[in-house]
Amino acid sequence: RPYVDYLVSEQNVKNIFVNGTTGEGLSLSIQERKQLAEEWVRQGKDKLDHVIVHVGALSLPESQDLARHAAAIGASGIAVIAPFFFKPTNKDELVAFLQKVASEASGVPFYYYHIPPLTGVKIRVEELLDGIREQIPTFQGVKFSDTDLLDLAQCINKNESEQFAFLYGVDEQLLGALAVGANGAVGSTYNYLGRKTNLMLQAFAKPDHALAQKYQFLIGEFLNFVIKLGFGVAQTKAVMTFVSGIPMGPPRPPLVNASEEFIAKAKAKLDNHFVQLQSGNILKS
Amino acid sequence: RPYVDYLVSEQNVKNIFVNGTTGEGLSLSIQERKQLAEEWVRQGKDKLDHVIVHVGALSLPESQDLARHAAAIGASGIAVIAPFFFKPTNKDELVAFLQKVASEASGVPFYYYHIPPLTGVKIRVEELLDGIREQIPTFQGVKFSDTDLLDLAQCINKNESEQFAFLYGVDEQLLGALAVGANGAVGSTYNYLGRKTNLMLQAFAKPDHALAQKYQFLIGEFLNFVIKLGFGVAQTKAVMTFVSGIPMGPPRPPLVNASEEFIAKAKAKLDNHFVQLQSGNILKS
Amino acid sequence: RPYVDYLVSEQNVKNIFVNGTTGEGLSLSIQERKQLAEEWVRQGKDKLDHVIVHVGALSLPESQDLARHAAAIGASGIAVIAPFFFKPTNKDELVAFLQKVASEASGVPFYYYHIPPLTGVKIRVEELLDGIREQIPTFQGVKFSDTDLLDLAQCINKNESEQFAFLYGVDEQLLGALAVGANGAVGSTYNYLGRKTNLMLQAFAKPDHALAQKYQFLIGEFLNFVIKLGFGVAQTKAVMTFVSGIPMGPPRPPLVNASEEFIAKAKAKLDNHFVQLQSGNILKS
Amino acid sequence: RPYVDYLVSEQNVKNIFVNGTTGEGLSLSIQERKQLAEEWVRQGKDKLDHVIVHVGALSLPESQDLARHAAAIGASGIAVIAPFFFKPTNKDELVAFLQKVASEASGVPFYYYHIPPLTGVKIRVEELLDGIREQIPTFQGVKFSDTDLLDLAQCINKNESEQFAFLYGVDEQLLGALAVGANGAVGSTYNYLGRKTNLMLQAFAKPDHALAQKYQFLIGEFLNFVIKLGFGVAQTKAVMTFVSGIPMGPPRPPLVNASEEFIAKAKAKLDNHFVQLQSGNILKS
Repeated sequence: RPYVDYLVSEQNVKNIFVNGTTGEGLSLSIQERKQLAEEWVRQGKDKLDHVIVHVGALSLPESQDLARHAAAIGASGIAVIAPFFFKPTNKDELVAFLQKVASEASGVPFYYYHIPPLTGVKIRVEELLDGIREQIPTFQGVKFSDTDLLDLAQCINKNESEQFAFLYGVDEQLLGALAVGANGAVGSTYNYLGRKTNLMLQAFAKPDHALAQKYQFLIGEFLNFVIKLGFGVAQTKAVMTFVSGIPMGPPRPPLVNASEEFIAKAKAKLDNHFVQLQSGNILKS
Repeated sequence: RPYVDYLVSEQNVKNIFVNGTTGEGLSLSIQERKQLAEEWVRQGKDKLDHVIVHVGALSLPESQDLARHAAAIGASGIAVIAPFFFKPTNKDELVAFLQKVASEASGVPFYYYHIPPLTGVKIRVEELLDGIREQIPTFQGVKFSDTDLLDLAQCINKNESEQFAFLYGVDEQLLGALAVGANGAVGSTYNYLGRKTNLMLQAFAKPDHALAQKYQFLIGEFLNFVIKLGFGVAQTKAVMTFVSGIPMGPPRPPLVNASEEFIAKAKAKLDNHFVQLQSGNILKS
Repeated sequence: RPYVDYLVSEQNVKNIFVNGTTGEGLSLSIQERKQLAEEWVRQGKDKLDHVIVHVGALSLPESQDLARHAAAIGASGIAVIAPFFFKPTNKDELVAFLQKVASEASGVPFYYYHIPPLTGVKIRVEELLDGIREQIPTFQGVKFSDTDLLDLAQCINKNESEQFAFLYGVDEQLLGALAVGANGAVGSTYNYLGRKTNLMLQAFAKPDHALAQKYQFLIGEFLNFVIKLGFGVAQTKAVMTFVSGIPMGPPRPPLVNASEEFIAKAKAKLDNHFVQLQSGNILKS
Repeated sequence: RPYVDYLVSEQNVKNIFVNGTTGEGLSLSIQERKQLAEEWVRQGKDKLDHVIVHVGALSLPESQDLARHAAAIGASGIAVIAPFFFKPTNKDELVAFLQKVASEASGVPFYYYHIPPLTGVKIRVEELLDGIREQIPTFQGVKFSDTDLLDLAQCINKNESEQFAFLYGVDEQLLGALAVGANGAVGSTYNYLGRKTNLMLQAFAKPDHALAQKYQFLIGEFLNFVIKLGFGVAQTKAVMTFVSGIPMGPPRPPLVNASEEFIAKAKAKLDNHFVQLQSGNILKS
């Protein structure tokens, strides 16, 4: 509950993607994933707009089980990553897998979680869209975590009348994705840079390119800094902890805790960084 | 039971690796994996020498659960693949994960399942071995599924007095691994080429290089042929079905059934191939 | 000469990058590269604003020879690709190589040609920039052919006062690069889509996001179409030939001529595409 | 001349591959490559059995020029690497390129230099062999620098009557390649471990598996050790210098000199290593 309150009040974030990469969903047992999903839906009631539950798994029956559970507890949507031990080799194999999960939660909006750098599944999303509503009537959009903006642009181009959502997931280049028409963003950094990112979205919509770039540069500068220190989900949790003041706990193996050195350096950078953002705002307004 | 009998009598295979890649272990639910392990242990009693159960999973608590179960049902050994969504980045992170599974089955021999082409985890096995017995007292060996024979050779070199087993898993180049000292083989092709491979092992041990090469070439020729047609676990199941006469059933999504065309071509090739092997034997003896 | 006239009058392109990837510079002999560079400089006089000659080569002495030649004939700039058989493994090794070429043409603006998908050299450009003017006083900018917009954005962020040029080279996602501040574009498609791209630049500068997206979508749609047919430098030459009416000649081995089928399909798509762009303009103006 | 004498007398090496990877052939100018080839042919007269000159280049006319030159100076053979900026995408494109070089030296045995880890060209050699003599009558064999022993084995299997040579180029796993029938070896380590490797070849031919393994393990132990220190062509030159006592000179950029620390550690390891090999010999004889 305190984390929901923090996200809403401090970061202006009102839509949540549960049990995804940052939440280490795939490192949890099925039972743990269900408990977490229930808790987010319960705590988010009347506070959050959407709670989307990631129900992807290597095992189709487990993914179906999670989908039924998400529907039962009233999740606003479900999302599924491409299976990545045995990988689908073409669009039809991927859609067949997704369809078998989606159909277990027939009233729940369905999102495909596209993240080729982690899955190795590089099937183009714009191909996936062809006829998708016939196979998955609940299809609602894509969490698009890839740097291929041609694919993203073609999705948006195709989609003019269909009303799918394309939520961009490579936080450090969100501005580029906005330029080709991304509808929103889902990413780990919004846990602690959500408010700043929302300001970037507003600047871009205005449009004020210079201000939007200023935000993107400052966000990028922080990410660039921590990437060089070694930045992953364990380090993200450490940053979330010191920004929110709410302990995130240790990551699950094979991940290991962020080092004290990382935390000290990242905190110093972020503190300095917020000052810059603030003065940037002042200069502009 | 008929498949156990077939393996023993037709393929001269007496050690089984359950719920691995060919068995699509990671596509099953935890409950299904337990059922399969139980059935293999039960049916293999007094017929098989070893039944090793693969208990690896992306989720550590699930992997631990499977390890406890394998110990309870009397498995001869357990094996664990490196986690591959979040990947260990060095030896210590990998061993820490493996240790937490192994310690749940403290009386059961433990094998590391090394398969970098599928996991992307390229930590060298010879590094892993340093001090492994202190951390994992049950450590017994490696299923080594990689083409890096320098690493394999260094493992065998280091291991002179330790009595670990290095079981090679790239069936199409087993002969090369034997030359540097591999102790045995674990692979999908031994479901249908087990007897021929055993003959190759004997020829190499004799040593009769020319005969061992003859077997390796014929095995390779078949694999080369089916690889060009598109060869994966689904196709392996099809070959197992027509060779053993025992239906293997369809693969789990995202895999799809082998095509009729594949089956016809692979069967024709194998029939012709057996004849060649036979005459090869005759010529030699 | 007719191709220079075509570029200026039909495509509104006034800056040329000679002997790069599209020009198959690395497939030519040193003598041929010199002849081509001379011809472009001669024909471009009073017509083109800049003729930048790519002088990169695997062999440092050859690259230095080409650099001296480019200076002698009055090229507006030189560019160098990272060596990619033996690859530099860090910034210092890369800069040392570039410096040894740049110093042979001490009065000529120098550009680094960053194209990791072809070279495999992934050294981040923003790191390269640190102190670059001390080592390469003629350093003038980067042809940035990569999808990593975080790196590009950090380059632009760092560069606020330095006046380097960052020319983007992934044509199909130029709009995303513009959003983070790219100064211009160098790419193969501008040989036949230069005018349309210039209209996109104008729309973005205005700013009119919807119109800029419309152009990016139509350009992307064509590229997406031909990429699926198999699109490389040989195919690019074929498109350049039928759009300009000026024969480009066959590509050098290992490239082979575009097929008749490709040419027919690409031409049909482009003809239809121009109509769409035209009506798009009309609707907007 | 002293290096030729050293190779023959100290390493028992009588066949030379000039201007390849270790010789940094692709970092030299065409003129330098010709000079080096001439010098090796001149100095090797009456001392070496074969001097094979690598004439591969990104530019076909340059490669053809080098091939004509090699023929003119009396090289025993020529070799060509697959072009790797623009890459052939199938067998026909690769053979077409090779053929255009081979035909410029119509009386000289031709070798294909297969090294996918550096070129990214993964066309299987066993496919290349089909009908190769019709297209390249001088085709004589392959320098096979890859860990795919299935491909190598199929080459040898196909080749039973054709008399091509398959020279293995991954020194650290040569023993595995011998097991499937490789005819010989071409690699950088034979500059300083040639004699030991020849002893391994003899042990394998005898056959004495245990002794052959002993040699492979000791060679592998040294390579494993230096690989962890960072081992490339520059480091190889340093080892060649301290083993032969003949200065190899600095590498060409982008390579940089091996560090003093590397040299000290590698020398200490090799000195200790020779002692081990020596005592190994004594124990065995």
